[in-house]
Amino acid sequence: MYKLVLIRHGESTWNLENRFTGWTDVDLTATGVEQAKNAGRLLKAEGYEFDLAYTSVLKRATRTLWHTLDEMDRTWLPVMHSWRLNERHYGALQGLNKADMAKQYGDAQVLVWRRSYDTPPPALEPTDPRSERGDIRYARLSPEQIPLTECLKDTVARVLPFWNEAMAPAIRAGKRIVVAAHGNSIRALVKYLDGVSDTDIVGLNIPNGIPLVYELDASLKPLRHDYLGDAEAAARAAAAVASQGKA
Amino acid sequence: MYKLVLIRHGESTWNLENRFTGWTDVDLTATGVEQAKNAGRLLKAEGYEFDLAYTSVLKRATRTLWHTLDEMDRTWLPVMHSWRLNERHYGALQGLNKADMAKQYGDAQVLVWRRSYDTPPPALEPTDPRSERGDIRYARLSPEQIPLTECLKDTVARVLPFWNEAMAPAIRAGKRIVVAAHGNSIRALVKYLDGVSDTDIVGLNIPNGIPLVYELDASLKPLRHDYLGDAEAAARAAAAVASQGKA
Repeated sequence: MYKLVLIRHGESTWNLENRFTGWTDVDLTATGVEQAKNAGRLLKAEGYEFDLAYTSVLKRATRTLWHTLDEMDRTWLPVMHSWRLNERHYGALQGLNKADMAKQYGDAQVLVWRRSYDTPPPALEPTDPRSERGDIRYARLSPEQIPLTECLKDTVARVLPFWNEAMAPAIRAGKRIVVAAHGNSIRALVKYLDGVSDTDIVGLNIPNGIPLVYELDASLKPLRHDYLGDAEAAARAAAAVASQGKA
Repeated sequence: MYKLVLIRHGESTWNLENRFTGWTDVDLTATGVEQAKNAGRLLKAEGYEFDLAYTSVLKRATRTLWHTLDEMDRTWLPVMHSWRLNERHYGALQGLNKADMAKQYGDAQVLVWRRSYDTPPPALEPTDPRSERGDIRYARLSPEQIPLTECLKDTVARVLPFWNEAMAPAIRAGKRIVVAAHGNSIRALVKYLDGVSDTDIVGLNIPNGIPLVYELDASLKPLRHDYLGDAEAAARAAAAVASQGKA
Protein backbone atom coordinates (compact mmCIF):
# COMPACT_ATOMS: atom_id res chain seq x y z
CA MET A 1 0.00 0.00 0.00
CA TYR A 2 1.23 3.44 -0.93
CA LYS A 3 0.57 6.95 0.34
CA LEU A 4 0.46 10.10 -1.74
CA VAL A 5 0.15 13.59 -0.24
CA LEU A 6 -1.30 16.49 -2.21
CA ILE A 7 -1.19 20.10 -0.98
CA ARG A 8 -2.83 23.06 -2.65
CA HIS A 9 -0.63 26.15 -2.25
CA GLY A 10 -1.42 28.62 0.55
CA GLU A 11 -3.46 31.76 -0.08
CA SER A 12 -1.98 33.87 -2.87
CA THR A 13 -2.17 37.63 -3.32
CA TRP A 14 -4.75 37.11 -6.05
CA ASN A 15 -6.79 34.63 -3.99
CA LEU A 16 -6.97 37.46 -1.48
CA GLU A 17 -7.91 40.00 -4.16
CA ASN A 18 -10.41 37.46 -5.57
CA ARG A 19 -8.84 37.62 -9.03
CA PHE A 20 -8.60 34.85 -11.62
CA THR A 21 -4.96 33.76 -11.46
CA GLY A 22 -4.28 30.77 -13.72
CA TRP A 23 -0.67 30.79 -14.88
CA THR A 24 0.03 34.30 -13.56
CA ASP A 25 2.97 33.88 -11.19
CA VAL A 26 1.73 35.66 -8.06
CA ASP A 27 3.23 35.05 -4.64
CA LEU A 28 1.78 33.90 -1.31
CA THR A 29 0.25 36.28 1.22
CA ALA A 30 1.40 36.20 4.87
CA THR A 31 -1.66 33.99 5.51
CA GLY A 32 -0.56 31.73 2.66
CA VAL A 33 2.91 31.38 4.17
CA GLU A 34 1.34 30.47 7.51
CA GLN A 35 -0.92 27.89 5.83
CA ALA A 36 2.11 26.35 4.11
CA LYS A 37 4.05 26.18 7.37
CA ASN A 38 1.03 24.64 9.06
CA ALA A 39 0.91 21.93 6.38
CA GLY A 40 4.52 21.12 7.28
CA ARG A 41 3.76 21.07 10.99
CA LEU A 42 0.80 18.71 10.45
CA LEU A 43 2.89 16.34 8.33
CA LYS A 44 5.75 16.41 10.84
CA ALA A 45 3.43 15.81 13.79
CA GLU A 46 1.97 12.76 12.01
CA GLY A 47 5.46 11.41 11.26
CA TYR A 48 5.26 11.64 7.47
CA GLU A 49 8.49 11.07 5.56
CA PHE A 50 9.02 11.66 1.84
CA ASP A 51 11.62 10.67 -0.72
CA LEU A 52 10.65 13.10 -3.45
CA ALA A 53 8.60 16.26 -3.91
CA TYR A 54 6.84 17.53 -7.01
CA THR A 55 5.57 21.01 -7.69
CA SER A 56 4.63 23.29 -10.56
CA VAL A 57 6.80 26.03 -12.07
CA LEU A 58 4.70 28.69 -10.30
CA LYS A 59 6.14 30.29 -7.20
CA ARG A 60 3.04 30.07 -5.00
CA ALA A 61 3.27 26.28 -5.19
CA THR A 62 7.07 26.15 -5.00
CA ARG A 63 7.13 28.42 -1.98
CA THR A 64 4.37 26.40 -0.31
CA LEU A 65 6.52 23.32 -0.77
CA TRP A 66 9.64 25.08 0.56
CA HIS A 67 7.83 26.22 3.71
CA THR A 68 6.32 22.76 4.17
CA LEU A 69 9.71 21.05 3.84
CA ASP A 70 11.32 23.67 6.05
CA GLU A 71 8.88 22.99 8.90
CA MET A 72 9.56 19.27 8.47
CA ASP A 73 13.34 19.89 8.51
CA ARG A 74 13.48 18.21 5.12
CA THR A 75 14.84 21.05 2.93
CA TRP A 76 17.32 18.55 1.46
CA LEU A 77 14.67 16.47 -0.34
CA PRO A 78 14.79 16.46 -4.14
CA VAL A 79 12.19 18.73 -5.72
CA MET A 80 11.02 18.28 -9.32
CA HIS A 81 9.12 21.03 -11.11
CA SER A 82 6.72 20.51 -13.98
CA TRP A 83 4.55 22.95 -15.92
CA ARG A 84 2.06 20.06 -16.11
CA LEU A 85 1.23 20.66 -12.43
CA ASN A 86 0.45 24.34 -13.06
CA GLU A 87 -2.95 25.81 -12.25
CA ARG A 88 -5.61 25.66 -14.97
CA HIS A 89 -4.96 28.45 -17.46
CA TYR A 90 -7.72 31.04 -17.07
CA GLY A 91 -7.37 32.62 -20.51
CA ALA A 92 -8.54 36.20 -20.94
CA LEU A 93 -9.94 36.18 -17.38
CA GLN A 94 -6.43 36.13 -15.84
CA GLY A 95 -6.07 39.20 -13.65
CA LEU A 96 -9.79 40.05 -13.56
CA ASN A 97 -11.85 40.13 -10.35
CA LYS A 98 -14.17 37.16 -9.82
CA ALA A 99 -16.92 39.17 -8.13
CA ASP A 100 -16.73 41.96 -10.77
CA MET A 101 -17.13 39.33 -13.46
CA ALA A 102 -20.10 37.86 -11.54
CA LYS A 103 -21.76 41.30 -11.37
CA GLN A 104 -21.13 41.85 -15.07
CA TYR A 105 -21.95 38.39 -16.44
CA GLY A 106 -23.93 36.81 -13.58
CA ASP A 107 -23.04 34.13 -11.05
CA ALA A 108 -24.08 31.38 -13.45
CA GLN A 109 -21.67 32.42 -16.21
CA VAL A 110 -18.80 32.78 -13.74
CA LEU A 111 -19.59 29.34 -12.32
CA VAL A 112 -19.41 27.96 -15.86
CA TRP A 113 -16.01 29.58 -16.38
CA ARG A 114 -14.79 28.43 -13.00
CA ARG A 115 -16.21 24.97 -12.87
CA SER A 116 -17.56 23.76 -16.19
CA TYR A 117 -15.68 20.62 -17.10
CA ASP A 118 -15.41 21.30 -20.80
CA THR A 119 -16.18 24.97 -21.48
CA PRO A 120 -13.02 27.09 -21.36
CA PRO A 121 -13.07 30.82 -20.58
CA PRO A 122 -12.39 33.20 -23.49
CA ALA A 123 -8.84 32.67 -24.80
CA LEU A 124 -5.95 35.10 -24.50
CA GLU A 125 -4.63 36.51 -27.75
CA PRO A 126 -1.14 35.05 -28.37
CA THR A 127 0.11 38.64 -28.50
CA ASP A 128 -1.54 39.57 -25.19
CA PRO A 129 1.15 40.72 -22.71
CA ARG A 130 -0.44 38.28 -20.24
CA SER A 131 0.41 35.34 -22.52
CA GLU A 132 3.20 33.06 -21.29
CA ARG A 133 4.56 32.41 -24.79
CA GLY A 134 7.67 34.54 -24.23
CA ASP A 135 8.31 33.20 -20.73
CA ILE A 136 11.74 31.51 -20.47
CA ARG A 137 10.42 28.78 -18.19
CA TYR A 138 8.26 27.46 -21.05
CA ALA A 139 10.95 27.92 -23.72
CA ARG A 140 11.30 24.17 -24.33
CA LEU A 141 7.59 23.65 -24.99
CA SER A 142 6.03 23.91 -28.41
CA PRO A 143 3.71 26.91 -28.80
CA GLU A 144 0.76 24.49 -28.94
CA GLN A 145 1.66 23.15 -25.49
CA ILE A 146 1.41 26.60 -23.92
CA PRO A 147 -2.31 27.18 -23.42
CA LEU A 148 -4.18 30.40 -24.17
CA THR A 149 -7.10 29.12 -22.07
CA GLU A 150 -8.13 25.83 -20.51
CA CYS A 151 -11.22 24.09 -19.22
CA LEU A 152 -10.66 21.45 -16.53
CA LYS A 153 -10.83 18.76 -19.23
CA ASP A 154 -7.78 20.39 -20.85
CA THR A 155 -6.00 20.52 -17.49
CA VAL A 156 -6.71 16.82 -16.91
CA ALA A 157 -5.29 16.06 -20.36
CA ARG A 158 -1.96 17.72 -19.58
CA VAL A 159 -1.69 16.62 -15.94
CA LEU A 160 -2.25 12.91 -16.66
CA PRO A 161 0.95 12.39 -18.71
CA PHE A 162 2.84 13.62 -15.64
CA TRP A 163 0.97 11.14 -13.45
CA ASN A 164 1.62 8.30 -15.89
CA GLU A 165 5.22 9.10 -16.76
CA ALA A 166 6.61 10.53 -13.51
CA MET A 167 4.42 10.13 -10.44
CA ALA A 168 2.99 6.62 -10.87
CA PRO A 169 6.35 5.00 -11.75
CA ALA A 170 7.98 6.75 -8.78
CA ILE A 171 5.25 5.56 -6.41
CA ARG A 172 5.53 2.01 -7.74
CA ALA A 173 9.29 2.23 -7.18
CA GLY A 174 8.54 2.88 -3.51
CA LYS A 175 9.11 6.63 -3.45
CA ARG A 176 7.01 8.47 -0.90
CA ILE A 177 5.76 11.57 -2.69
CA VAL A 178 4.46 14.97 -1.67
CA VAL A 179 2.98 17.27 -4.31
CA ALA A 180 2.48 21.01 -3.85
CA ALA A 181 0.23 22.18 -6.65
CA HIS A 182 -2.94 24.12 -7.46
CA GLY A 183 -6.69 23.87 -7.03
CA ASN A 184 -7.31 22.60 -10.55
CA SER A 185 -4.21 20.47 -11.11
CA ILE A 186 -5.11 18.69 -7.84
CA ARG A 187 -8.77 18.42 -8.93
CA ALA A 188 -7.48 16.83 -12.16
CA LEU A 189 -5.54 14.22 -10.15
CA VAL A 190 -8.48 13.62 -7.78
CA LYS A 191 -10.89 13.22 -10.70
CA TYR A 192 -8.63 10.61 -12.26
CA LEU A 193 -7.74 8.74 -9.06
CA ASP A 194 -11.28 8.61 -7.66
CA GLY A 195 -13.04 8.31 -11.02
CA VAL A 196 -15.16 11.41 -10.28
CA SER A 197 -17.70 12.09 -13.03
CA ASP A 198 -17.53 15.18 -15.26
CA THR A 199 -20.67 16.39 -13.43
CA ASP A 200 -19.57 15.73 -9.86
CA ILE A 201 -16.14 17.31 -10.25
CA VAL A 202 -17.87 20.72 -10.63
CA GLY A 203 -18.79 20.71 -6.95
CA LEU A 204 -15.41 19.50 -5.64
CA ASN A 205 -13.18 22.16 -4.07
CA ILE A 206 -9.67 21.86 -2.66
CA PRO A 207 -8.82 24.02 0.39
CA ASN A 208 -5.51 25.91 0.56
CA GLY A 209 -2.63 24.43 2.51
CA ILE A 210 -4.27 21.33 4.01
CA PRO A 211 -2.49 18.06 3.16
CA LEU A 212 -4.78 15.62 1.33
CA VAL A 213 -3.56 12.08 1.96
CA TYR A 214 -4.38 9.25 -0.45
CA GLU A 215 -3.85 5.63 0.43
CA LEU A 216 -3.38 3.63 -2.77
CA ASP A 217 -3.40 -0.11 -3.32
CA ALA A 218 -0.75 -2.02 -5.29
CA SER A 219 -2.38 -1.02 -8.59
CA LEU A 220 -2.53 2.63 -7.40
CA LYS A 221 -6.30 2.58 -6.90
CA PRO A 222 -7.36 4.74 -3.93
CA LEU A 223 -8.40 2.87 -0.80
CA ARG A 224 -9.29 6.11 1.01
CA HIS A 225 -8.39 9.76 1.21
CA ASP A 226 -8.47 12.24 4.09
CA TYR A 227 -7.44 15.77 4.88
CA LEU A 228 -4.88 15.94 7.68
CA GLY A 229 -5.82 17.77 10.84
CA ASP A 230 -9.21 19.27 11.65
CA ALA A 231 -11.80 17.84 9.20
CA GLU A 232 -14.29 20.64 9.85
CA ALA A 233 -11.65 23.28 9.15
CA ALA A 234 -10.91 21.57 5.82
CA ALA A 235 -14.62 21.53 4.93
CA ARG A 236 -15.01 25.22 5.82
CA ALA A 237 -11.93 26.11 3.75
CA ALA A 238 -13.28 24.15 0.77
CA ALA A 239 -16.64 25.93 1.08
CA ALA A 240 -14.85 29.29 1.09
CA VAL A 241 -13.17 28.34 -2.20
CA ALA A 242 -16.58 27.46 -3.68
CA SER A 243 -18.04 30.88 -2.76
CA GLN A 244 -15.26 32.98 -4.35
CA GLY A 245 -17.04 33.37 -7.68
CA LYS A 246 -20.23 34.90 -6.31
CA ALA A 247 -21.23 38.53 -6.73
CA MET B 1 33.21 27.87 -23.78
CA TYR B 2 31.24 27.17 -20.63
CA LYS B 3 30.46 29.12 -17.48
CA LEU B 4 30.10 27.73 -13.98
CA VAL B 5 28.95 29.81 -11.00
CA LEU B 6 29.90 28.87 -7.44
CA ILE B 7 28.39 30.58 -4.39
CA ARG B 8 29.42 30.02 -0.79
CA HIS B 9 26.35 30.22 1.46
CA GLY B 10 25.61 33.49 3.29
CA GLU B 11 26.67 34.05 6.88
CA SER B 12 25.36 31.33 9.18
CA THR B 13 24.50 31.59 12.86
CA TRP B 14 27.71 29.72 13.68
CA ASN B 15 29.81 31.87 11.33
CA LEU B 16 28.51 34.75 13.44
CA GLU B 17 29.27 32.94 16.70
CA ASN B 18 32.69 31.97 15.28
CA ARG B 19 32.05 28.26 15.89
CA PHE B 20 33.30 25.30 13.85
CA THR B 21 30.26 24.17 11.91
CA GLY B 22 31.10 21.36 9.50
CA TRP B 23 28.06 19.16 8.92
CA THR B 24 26.03 20.75 11.71
CA ASP B 25 22.85 22.01 10.00
CA VAL B 26 22.69 25.62 11.22
CA ASP B 27 20.65 28.27 9.45
CA LEU B 28 21.51 31.64 7.90
CA THR B 29 21.57 34.88 9.89
CA ALA B 30 19.63 37.93 8.64
CA THR B 31 22.95 39.11 7.17
CA GLY B 32 23.35 35.74 5.47
CA VAL B 33 19.89 36.02 3.92
CA GLU B 34 20.78 39.49 2.64
CA GLN B 35 24.06 38.18 1.18
CA ALA B 36 22.18 35.40 -0.58
CA LYS B 37 19.65 37.82 -2.02
CA ASN B 38 22.47 40.08 -3.13
CA ALA B 39 24.06 37.15 -4.98
CA GLY B 40 20.78 36.75 -6.85
CA ARG B 41 20.58 40.46 -7.63
CA LEU B 42 24.16 40.47 -8.98
CA LEU B 43 23.47 37.46 -11.20
CA LYS B 44 20.21 38.94 -12.44
CA ALA B 45 21.80 42.34 -13.16
CA GLU B 46 24.51 40.60 -15.22
CA GLY B 47 21.91 38.61 -17.17
CA TYR B 48 22.95 35.15 -15.97
CA GLU B 49 20.64 32.26 -16.84
CA PHE B 50 20.89 28.73 -15.50
CA ASP B 51 19.43 25.36 -16.44
CA LEU B 52 20.25 23.51 -13.26
CA ALA B 53 21.27 24.22 -9.67
CA TYR B 54 23.27 22.06 -7.29
CA THR B 55 23.53 22.38 -3.56
CA SER B 56 24.42 20.35 -0.47
CA VAL B 57 21.96 18.72 1.92
CA LEU B 58 22.64 21.47 4.50
CA LYS B 59 20.06 24.20 4.90
CA ARG B 60 22.43 27.18 4.92
CA ALA B 61 23.43 26.29 1.34
CA THR B 62 19.93 25.29 0.24
CA ARG B 63 18.42 28.47 1.62
CA THR B 64 21.17 30.56 0.00
CA LEU B 65 20.25 28.96 -3.31
CA TRP B 66 16.52 29.54 -2.76
CA HIS B 67 17.06 33.24 -2.01
CA THR B 68 19.39 33.57 -5.00
CA LEU B 69 16.88 31.93 -7.36
CA ASP B 70 14.05 33.94 -5.84
CA GLU B 71 15.80 37.24 -6.56
CA MET B 72 16.42 36.04 -10.13
CA ASP B 73 12.74 35.01 -10.47
CA ARG B 74 13.97 31.51 -11.26
CA THR B 75 12.38 29.53 -8.39
CA TRP B 76 11.23 26.98 -10.99
CA LEU B 77 14.74 25.76 -11.84
CA PRO B 78 15.58 22.15 -10.97
CA VAL B 79 17.66 21.82 -7.79
CA MET B 80 19.77 18.75 -7.07
CA HIS B 81 21.10 18.08 -3.56
CA SER B 82 24.19 16.05 -2.77
CA TRP B 83 25.92 15.31 0.53
CA ARG B 84 29.14 15.41 -1.52
CA LEU B 85 28.81 19.20 -1.65
CA ASN B 86 28.55 19.45 2.16
CA GLU B 87 31.05 21.50 4.16
CA ARG B 88 34.19 19.74 5.34
CA HIS B 89 33.36 17.67 8.41
CA TYR B 90 35.03 19.30 11.42
CA GLY B 91 35.06 16.23 13.64
CA ALA B 92 35.15 16.78 17.40
CA LEU B 93 35.56 20.54 16.85
CA GLN B 94 31.97 20.89 15.56
CA GLY B 95 30.17 23.35 17.82
CA LEU B 96 33.30 24.71 19.51
CA ASN B 97 34.38 28.36 19.31
CA LYS B 98 37.29 29.07 16.96
CA ALA B 99 38.79 31.84 19.13
CA ASP B 100 38.42 29.75 22.33
CA MET B 101 40.25 26.92 20.63
CA ALA B 102 42.95 29.37 19.51
CA LYS B 103 43.40 30.60 23.10
CA GLN B 104 43.55 27.03 24.37
CA TYR B 105 45.72 25.43 21.66
CA GLY B 106 47.32 28.47 19.99
CA ASP B 107 46.69 30.14 16.63
CA ALA B 108 49.08 27.74 14.87
CA GLN B 109 47.22 24.59 15.94
CA VAL B 110 43.87 26.08 14.97
CA LEU B 111 45.30 27.11 11.60
CA VAL B 112 46.42 23.51 11.10
CA TRP B 113 42.92 22.23 11.94
CA ARG B 114 41.31 24.85 9.74
CA ARG B 115 43.65 24.85 6.80
CA SER B 116 46.09 21.95 6.81
CA TYR B 117 45.53 20.00 3.62
CA ASP B 118 46.01 16.55 5.07
CA THR B 119 45.75 16.77 8.89
CA PRO B 120 42.16 16.25 10.07
CA PRO B 121 40.88 17.61 13.39
CA PRO B 122 40.23 15.06 16.17
CA ALA B 123 37.45 12.66 15.11
CA LEU B 124 33.98 12.47 16.59
CA GLU B 125 33.13 9.24 18.37
CA PRO B 126 30.51 7.35 16.30
CA THR B 127 28.29 7.43 19.39
CA ASP B 128 28.71 11.22 19.87
CA PRO B 129 25.27 12.88 19.68
CA ARG B 130 26.87 15.29 17.18
CA SER B 131 27.56 12.41 14.76
CA GLU B 132 25.39 12.32 11.63
CA ARG B 133 25.19 8.52 11.55
CA GLY B 134 21.55 8.47 12.66
CA ASP B 135 20.49 11.34 10.38
CA ILE B 136 17.80 10.26 7.89
CA ARG B 137 19.29 12.34 5.10
CA TYR B 138 22.38 10.09 5.09
CA ALA B 139 20.43 6.86 5.50
CA ARG B 140 21.40 5.57 2.05
CA LEU B 141 25.14 5.99 2.65
CA SER B 142 27.34 3.30 4.10
CA PRO B 143 28.65 4.13 7.60
CA GLU B 144 32.15 4.52 6.09
CA GLN B 145 30.87 7.24 3.76
CA ILE B 146 29.66 9.36 6.68
CA PRO B 147 32.79 11.06 8.02
CA LEU B 148 33.70 11.45 11.67
CA THR B 149 36.26 14.11 10.69
CA GLU B 150 37.83 15.35 7.46
CA CYS B 151 40.89 17.22 6.30
CA LEU B 152 40.53 19.13 3.02
CA LYS B 153 42.15 16.22 1.19
CA ASP B 154 39.25 14.02 2.37
CA THR B 155 36.76 16.65 1.23
CA VAL B 156 38.40 16.81 -2.21
CA ALA B 157 38.17 13.02 -2.42
CA ARG B 158 34.39 12.99 -1.87
CA VAL B 159 33.61 16.16 -3.86
CA LEU B 160 35.44 15.03 -7.03
CA PRO B 161 33.15 12.07 -7.80
CA PHE B 162 30.28 14.55 -7.87
CA TRP B 163 32.21 16.77 -10.27
CA ASN B 164 33.09 13.82 -12.49
CA GLU B 165 29.75 12.02 -12.42
CA ALA B 166 27.23 14.89 -12.22
CA MET B 167 28.61 18.37 -12.79
CA ALA B 168 31.11 17.83 -15.63
CA PRO B 169 28.73 15.71 -17.76
CA ALA B 170 25.96 18.27 -17.25
CA ILE B 171 28.26 21.15 -18.26
CA ARG B 172 29.41 19.22 -21.35
CA ALA B 173 25.74 18.64 -22.20
CA GLY B 174 25.32 22.42 -22.31
CA LYS B 175 23.64 22.90 -18.93
CA ARG B 176 24.37 26.24 -17.32
CA ILE B 177 25.02 25.46 -13.68
CA VAL B 178 24.93 27.37 -10.41
CA VAL B 179 26.24 25.72 -7.24
CA ALA B 180 25.44 26.92 -3.73
CA ALA B 181 27.83 25.18 -1.39
CA HIS B 182 30.35 25.70 1.40
CA GLY B 183 33.79 27.22 1.99
CA ASN B 184 35.60 23.91 1.81
CA SER B 185 33.56 22.08 -0.82
CA ILE B 186 34.11 25.13 -3.06
CA ARG B 187 37.84 25.17 -2.15
CA ALA B 188 37.93 21.51 -3.17
CA LEU B 189 36.45 22.37 -6.58
CA VAL B 190 38.74 25.39 -7.01
CA LYS B 191 41.80 23.32 -6.07
CA TYR B 192 40.92 20.74 -8.69
CA LEU B 193 39.88 23.16 -11.44
CA ASP B 194 42.83 25.54 -11.05
CA GLY B 195 45.37 22.89 -10.07
CA VAL B 196 46.17 24.73 -6.82
CA SER B 197 49.00 23.04 -4.88
CA ASP B 198 48.44 21.42 -1.49
CA THR B 199 50.50 24.28 -0.02
CA ASP B 200 48.82 27.19 -1.77
CA ILE B 201 45.27 26.03 -1.05
CA VAL B 202 45.92 26.77 2.67
CA GLY B 203 45.84 30.50 1.97
CA LEU B 204 42.81 30.48 -0.31
CA ASN B 205 39.54 31.70 1.25
CA ILE B 206 36.04 31.91 -0.23
CA PRO B 207 33.85 34.85 0.83
CA ASN B 208 30.20 34.32 1.75
CA GLY B 209 27.51 35.02 -0.82
CA ILE B 210 29.60 36.42 -3.69
CA PRO B 211 29.17 34.54 -6.99
CA LEU B 212 32.48 33.12 -8.26
CA VAL B 213 32.28 32.75 -12.03
CA TYR B 214 34.50 30.28 -13.90
CA GLU B 215 34.89 30.35 -17.65
CA LEU B 216 35.87 26.87 -18.86
CA ASP B 217 37.16 25.74 -22.23
CA ALA B 218 35.81 22.78 -24.19
CA SER B 219 37.82 20.35 -22.04
CA LEU B 220 36.53 22.12 -18.88
CA LYS B 221 39.91 23.73 -18.11
CA PRO B 222 39.48 27.20 -16.54
CA LEU B 223 40.23 30.16 -18.81
CA ARG B 224 39.61 32.63 -16.00
CA HIS B 225 37.61 33.16 -12.85
CA ASP B 226 36.22 36.29 -11.20
CA TYR B 227 34.00 37.30 -8.34
CA LEU B 228 30.91 39.16 -9.51
CA GLY B 229 30.43 42.72 -8.33
CA ASP B 230 32.88 44.78 -6.30
CA ALA B 231 36.30 43.03 -6.42
CA GLU B 232 37.57 44.87 -3.34
CA ALA B 233 34.52 43.84 -1.33
CA ALA B 234 35.18 40.21 -2.31
CA ALA B 235 38.83 40.50 -1.21
CA ARG B 236 37.83 42.06 2.12
CA ALA B 237 35.25 39.33 2.71
CA ALA B 238 37.83 36.60 1.94
CA ALA B 239 40.30 38.24 4.35
CA ALA B 240 37.62 38.25 7.06
CA VAL B 241 37.18 34.48 6.58
CA ALA B 242 40.94 34.00 6.94
CA SER B 243 41.02 35.88 10.28
CA GLN B 244 38.23 33.88 11.96
CA GLY B 245 40.56 31.35 13.59
CA LYS B 246 42.68 33.86 15.49
CA ALA B 247 42.59 34.32 19.24
